[in-house]
Amino acid sequence: METLYRTQMEAARKGIITDQMRAVAKKEYRDPEEIRALVAEGKVAICANRLHKCLDPNGVGSMLRTKINVNLGVSRDCKDYDVEMEKVMAAVNMGAEAIMDLSSHGDTGPFRRKLIAECPAMIGTVPVYDSVIHYRRDLSELTAKDFIDVVRLHAEDGVDFMTLHCGITRDTVREIKNHGRKMNIVSRGGSLVFAWMCMTGNENPFYEFYDEILEICREYDVTISLGDACRPGCLADAGDSCQIGELVRLGELTKRAWDRDVQVMVEGPGHMPFDQIEANMKLQQTICMGAPFYVLGPIVTDIAPGYDHITSAIGGTAAAAAGAAFLCYVTPAEHLALPNLEDVKQGIIASKIAAHAGDIAKHVPHSRDADDLMGDARRTFDWEKQWELAIDGETAKRVRDERKPELEESCSMCGKFCAVRSMNRALNGEYIDIL
Amino acid sequence: METLYRTQMEAARKGIITDQMRAVAKKEYRDPEEIRALVAEGKVAICANRLHKCLDPNGVGSMLRTKINVNLGVSRDCKDYDVEMEKVMAAVNMGAEAIMDLSSHGDTGPFRRKLIAECPAMIGTVPVYDSVIHYRRDLSELTAKDFIDVVRLHAEDGVDFMTLHCGITRDTVREIKNHGRKMNIVSRGGSLVFAWMCMTGNENPFYEFYDEILEICREYDVTISLGDACRPGCLADAGDSCQIGELVRLGELTKRAWDRDVQVMVEGPGHMPFDQIEANMKLQQTICMGAPFYVLGPIVTDIAPGYDHITSAIGGTAAAAAGAAFLCYVTPAEHLALPNLEDVKQGIIASKIAAHAGDIAKHVPHSRDADDLMGDARRTFDWEKQWELAIDGETAKRVRDERKPELEESCSMCGKFCAVRSMNRALNGEYIDIL
Repeated sequence: METLYRTQMEAARKGIITDQMRAVAKKEYRDPEEIRALVAEGKVAICANRLHKCLDPNGVGSMLRTKINVNLGVSRDCKDYDVEMEKVMAAVNMGAEAIMDLSSHGDTGPFRRKLIAECPAMIGTVPVYDSVIHYRRDLSELTAKDFIDVVRLHAEDGVDFMTLHCGITRDTVREIKNHGRKMNIVSRGGSLVFAWMCMTGNENPFYEFYDEILEICREYDVTISLGDACRPGCLADAGDSCQIGELVRLGELTKRAWDRDVQVMVEGPGHMPFDQIEANMKLQQTICMGAPFYVLGPIVTDIAPGYDHITSAIGGTAAAAAGAAFLCYVTPAEHLALPNLEDVKQGIIASKIAAHAGDIAKHVPHSRDADDLMGDARRTFDWEKQWELAIDGETAKRVRDERKPELEESCSMCGKFCAVRSMNRALNGEYIDIL
Repeated sequence: METLYRTQMEAARKGIITDQMRAVAKKEYRDPEEIRALVAEGKVAICANRLHKCLDPNGVGSMLRTKINVNLGVSRDCKDYDVEMEKVMAAVNMGAEAIMDLSSHGDTGPFRRKLIAECPAMIGTVPVYDSVIHYRRDLSELTAKDFIDVVRLHAEDGVDFMTLHCGITRDTVREIKNHGRKMNIVSRGGSLVFAWMCMTGNENPFYEFYDEILEICREYDVTISLGDACRPGCLADAGDSCQIGELVRLGELTKRAWDRDVQVMVEGPGHMPFDQIEANMKLQQTICMGAPFYVLGPIVTDIAPGYDHITSAIGGTAAAAAGAAFLCYVTPAEHLALPNLEDVKQGIIASKIAAHAGDIAKHVPHSRDADDLMGDARRTFDWEKQWELAIDGETAKRVRDERKPELEESCSMCGKFCAVRSMNRALNGEYIDIL
């Protein structure tokens, strides 16, 4: 089989059902042929670098279960590969389907290769972050070729998907300067590309040498995650001409990638008022012809720093319900500081809630099964079953145990006023004592 | 003026603009005449018992800023009036516009009267909870008259709004038994009324003696909050015939109250899949002719105990955006235990986020002002201004301070990779160092 195709998309288009497609079909309660057809069309991406041998493959697509990504990586604060690897595996155990390695310190290669060797989740990177660190030269001193070489290096290391800010051009530099956005560019990678373009006067290398990038991605089956440099960084910038102009270019770049059988995801907002989210998801689906949408947030208010796991769970649910396929987690430390372990946990749980609530809303097969069993467990006071079904049963059990109820069947919130207890007794024709 | 009308609604219908209407108009950036017209129609309720002298009045209506309610009260765990009063004032300072006193232990009267004497927020109660405690007789031993007398007692004490489960009848008892709901009735008050009906075989006194209740409410200007006994307690029960059947009866009861110039709010879900929320809000608005909708949640997944402040912030935003006027807070302890102080805080903040995000979505005048200023403060690295604008600036400041950034202008998350820093420099034509 290995010689018949380079990418999952090429295989799908040749009518080949790969092992990865079969694995995805099983997880999603779908027919393998159905998954193959969706991969062929680009509506499902199976991010699976040919060299990531321990990968447990997942499909990303609007009609599948919504996936979540967790950002980790070694930094000035945490340089210990083993400690960071433990965080990665904890995130995977909590339900993250993807890990983006945003390492920003020291020699990033060994950690990246360790991740690929040991982690079964999809691994993503943002090569532009790594360029400065890899070459140990400042941004203005890097050449277009340097950036492309880092893309190749990451592909050779086995990275499954890469965020590449291909959609901004010299025109964007003029647009941003003229439009007077409140927050300009808040995408880290996007701002680095913009800064490099400003300092060198050159065209965006990820746009100029896109064909070369496609060749690399085709060779290893790297899924391109088309970065949205112009994603709104505050409610006021949402849906403006900078954001939508870039989205139109991302649609063109999606087409060019698909022409080379390269898989694509498209990245999206950002900060956005709740009432604009559904329309934005639909717009992405039409402009990018159904390519999976990978969103950060959307964060639905700018004034809740410290609680942006909540503001983005709100937006993420609305996004997933309207067709987003992949949510990037946001932690309570967003806008403030590097997230600590507890922040990472809170961010993952909030994202899982959003993904799950979105799946129920868009009627993903079997997405409500656990919820229905939870209803039964609550009605019958089966607390052990409740902990088992819960997204974080350990925390739920601890909260109940810390505040011992007077009655085993109810909890300390209502005691004998418990509606479930009263109803069970009433429907059994029993006497209901409240005092 | 006092003799010309009994209720805000009667005043409005007589063309009188009351002080309360004027105060509401000012807070909402509306014309007093506009508020008067909305009160006359029943589309805005100003919950203001004539005896609640220290009230700082607020309007509740789909076109106004979304209000939030916090449940407190003395319980077996916390019997100290002064301690509970401190919690109340802390909730008001955190932005709660209403406090429901759900006291369930000891002599509830003195605390209720202390609340009315000292608290400027709207005060609500659920008289059926208090009935058992007030008479110190078990539920089955109470008469219909006993319940109505507690309503009168609360009205005389100055309560601004009361949750009364008037919408279930003997027919509902049969419906619940036959329909086979997963969670039956999860409304505490609703289950008590249901249990009483089952044990005595009598009709629901809050339905049978509704006219008498209207007389009491008219006398003191108590707003009736029509309780939804059949609100879904799990996703599977959402939108079923029990819920919608009761909503239809609540629409009829709304009309009967308005005929007597009594103000009304209608209570709503509960647990509900995200995709059903908007339709449910619109349905309530048509069936109840625009009466303000007061929702608990909606909780958008059943499997996140320990995190139901998040699941309900998601549903609450969708509800507010689609027309809900009033959100009941939900704490992380929901379904598990009596909330502690930290739970109360987390619940209030999550509700404020939902209310605020909903207001922005439905374009309530000036609702986005603080968000826009936050964007400016972030662009200019004005951290003090950020703390000032934040819903919980103290927490946000603490998170940043705990993890000292290497650069004053950025934070420890991105350091020199900070997009805002790079963009400010790039747009000023400055050199951008990253290493």
